[in-house]
Amino acid sequence: MALINDHYLKLKAGYLFPEIGRRVSKFAAENPSAKIIRLGIGDVTEPLPSTIIEAMHRATDEMAKRESFRGYGPEQGYDFLRNSIAQHDFIERGATIAADEIFVSDGSKCDTGNILDIFGAGNIVAVTDPVYPVYVDTNVMAGRTGAADETGRYAGLVYLPVTAENNFTPAIPDRKVDLLYLCYPNNPTGTVASKETLKRFVDYAKANDTIIFFDAAYEAYITDPSIPHSIYEIDGARDVAIEFRSFSKTAGFTGTRCAFTVVPKGLMAKSTSGESVELHALWNRRHTTKFNGVSYIIQRGAEAVYSENGHRQVRAMIDFYLENAAILCRGLRQAGLVVYGGTNAPYVWLKTPGEMSSWQFFDHLLSQGNLVGTPGSGFGAAGEGYFRLSAFNSRANIEEAVSRIQKMLA
Amino acid sequence: MALINDHYLKLKAGYLFPEIGRRVSKFAAENPSAKIIRLGIGDVTEPLPSTIIEAMHRATDEMAKRESFRGYGPEQGYDFLRNSIAQHDFIERGATIAADEIFVSDGSKCDTGNILDIFGAGNIVAVTDPVYPVYVDTNVMAGRTGAADETGRYAGLVYLPVTAENNFTPAIPDRKVDLLYLCYPNNPTGTVASKETLKRFVDYAKANDTIIFFDAAYEAYITDPSIPHSIYEIDGARDVAIEFRSFSKTAGFTGTRCAFTVVPKGLMAKSTSGESVELHALWNRRHTTKFNGVSYIIQRGAEAVYSENGHRQVRAMIDFYLENAAILCRGLRQAGLVVYGGTNAPYVWLKTPGEMSSWQFFDHLLSQGNLVGTPGSGFGAAGEGYFRLSAFNSRANIEEAVSRIQKMLA
Repeated sequence: MALINDHYLKLKAGYLFPEIGRRVSKFAAENPSAKIIRLGIGDVTEPLPSTIIEAMHRATDEMAKRESFRGYGPEQGYDFLRNSIAQHDFIERGATIAADEIFVSDGSKCDTGNILDIFGAGNIVAVTDPVYPVYVDTNVMAGRTGAADETGRYAGLVYLPVTAENNFTPAIPDRKVDLLYLCYPNNPTGTVASKETLKRFVDYAKANDTIIFFDAAYEAYITDPSIPHSIYEIDGARDVAIEFRSFSKTAGFTGTRCAFTVVPKGLMAKSTSGESVELHALWNRRHTTKFNGVSYIIQRGAEAVYSENGHRQVRAMIDFYLENAAILCRGLRQAGLVVYGGTNAPYVWLKTPGEMSSWQFFDHLLSQGNLVGTPGSGFGAAGEGYFRLSAFNSRANIEEAVSRIQKMLA
Repeated sequence: MALINDHYLKLKAGYLFPEIGRRVSKFAAENPSAKIIRLGIGDVTEPLPSTIIEAMHRATDEMAKRESFRGYGPEQGYDFLRNSIAQHDFIERGATIAADEIFVSDGSKCDTGNILDIFGAGNIVAVTDPVYPVYVDTNVMAGRTGAADETGRYAGLVYLPVTAENNFTPAIPDRKVDLLYLCYPNNPTGTVASKETLKRFVDYAKANDTIIFFDAAYEAYITDPSIPHSIYEIDGARDVAIEFRSFSKTAGFTGTRCAFTVVPKGLMAKSTSGESVELHALWNRRHTTKFNGVSYIIQRGAEAVYSENGHRQVRAMIDFYLENAAILCRGLRQAGLVVYGGTNAPYVWLKTPGEMSSWQFFDHLLSQGNLVGTPGSGFGAAGEGYFRLSAFNSRANIEEAVSRIQKMLA
């Protein structure tokens, strides 16, 4: 008799974004004339820059001719892309990462879930709270948690609250954990981690043989030059950290699909018999056995992000979203709201007004302002009383959203 | 202390294709003037048909304009593609499969590995021998086997031999198994399964609550009209089977990346407490949590495979490879070899001459004929004494390969 993976039954049925979708669809059906503006899910809206488009056209044409046709590529990605990434994202920032430590993939969501394959069931896992739900759900699926309580917290996971009270800086875990997720610039709070904060975590990881999963999907939004873009800018991080990066938010690739994961050589974990095993070799085995590489056409598009023109165009797109975020922050503060994030990230994290719960504010914003955001409690118990707005939208929609909120709260 | 997944340590170090690569590189370095022809790894060589190229150019241009730009798509694939697949690959063949039972992905290699996520650790798994190594390796990684013996067989797996003795038709398992892999047209043997054979497996699966993983990556190569393309052409298969399909070999997408998996609604397995659980819901949860959809551009390319022109062009490409296979079969038989497969599949499976082992024949063919094939024993113990040649190459190379083999064996 075929048996399912029972751990899936522990997953809470209402994943955040489907529940948002359900409420928005219901409202739209009941109010067909409402002009709904969506600042909920963090999806980009601006077209791909021309340099990327041209690179993908050229690569497509190569696929049309026998002499330049490409079949299976290396599962880890083509050297032209891995070399560009190593040079521009790491070496130029003083982080020592080699091209063969970079594994190109079709998405960081996939990678942050799949990375768990190479780790044993017995590891203790720590996440911040609020947190990107995929980190939690994939650990539930892998059997590293017990059941969820009424706030959505799973038994066995270690939660590190990040709230206004601790200035959105998680405390070092008060016990030994084996795997620890950090996401900076942070989704959902839009806040960043200083060099000192990251150094404290790297030191903790060294002292406790912890592996840090560092999700830097939003690093391109960092405007403050003192904030590290990569955890490998911190001394010693190569010995404790795996980093996840994506072209989704950096270059508008949410529908184009390209990302990468960095697993430094020499990064070790233990077998249950106490043997030290290099994670690079394990991830390489996983990646080559259960993945077959990213489309050649898409990899050429990603490579173009690092060209002079590509870089300039992508930078302009990021600046556009950051200006959106600035308009949101300013407008919401003028409306009397307390606002965090939004200067080094495309997300604005606000305190719900008047003791409203996150979902109450969601319903209020939808019904009164026809605006869609994301309830903070959907990201974790400590997100209750907060709310996320995304800066990914047209300028006109951002300005209209601000104006509606100001009217609502006037 | 972070712990690795110990099961990875059971994997045999020398995966088949890297070992082949190593031997070929060594030979090429020592014999720089040798004109090596590669008929080893099953990778396509012909360019993408113009209809597919045009569709991808159009989709790329859509990504360049704000009005037509696409961000995140549905993780399961766009309806335009799912509908085309359901209509042409299933409904037109009399198989009742709906669009929402189709999960578009970036590869069948990924899917056949990832599907294991939704099944429990306690399942007994059966594979044919020889077999596509990914089925075995992903089960080793998931902890469903013991260690490998000297022939490469893992303890705990049930092996169903397919050799000339049983006309390459596996016997029904002599015990209860929970998960059973079938691949038809078969990789590596190039043989097919009749309706009667598949019906016997479906009936076995029904009687034993077994889930069949049916890999139909090569279905487009079927020329015999009596051979089923999909397991869902067999009565009752919806209740027992998950099917994997790919555009890789069908449409030359090995470097372009698109595939899909069919999980029928109503297909059930049990939790350890005996509850029946629908696999469609579990796979949907897995797919939406650990995957973020295939590139929009690539999905438009895949859709074009089903257009009138696309279908015709793709058909011509398959016929070209099948003619290659026919030339190989004919030429090898003239050289006195015993040959199987090659009429409903792009693979030719031959008996090594003169009691040579698979690897002896590999080395002999490489050194004497400067030809690269795949040793049968690399696909499993029962593949010893066999050898795989791929028909994916130019006509000139196929003819030259035949001529070299004929000279070698004359």
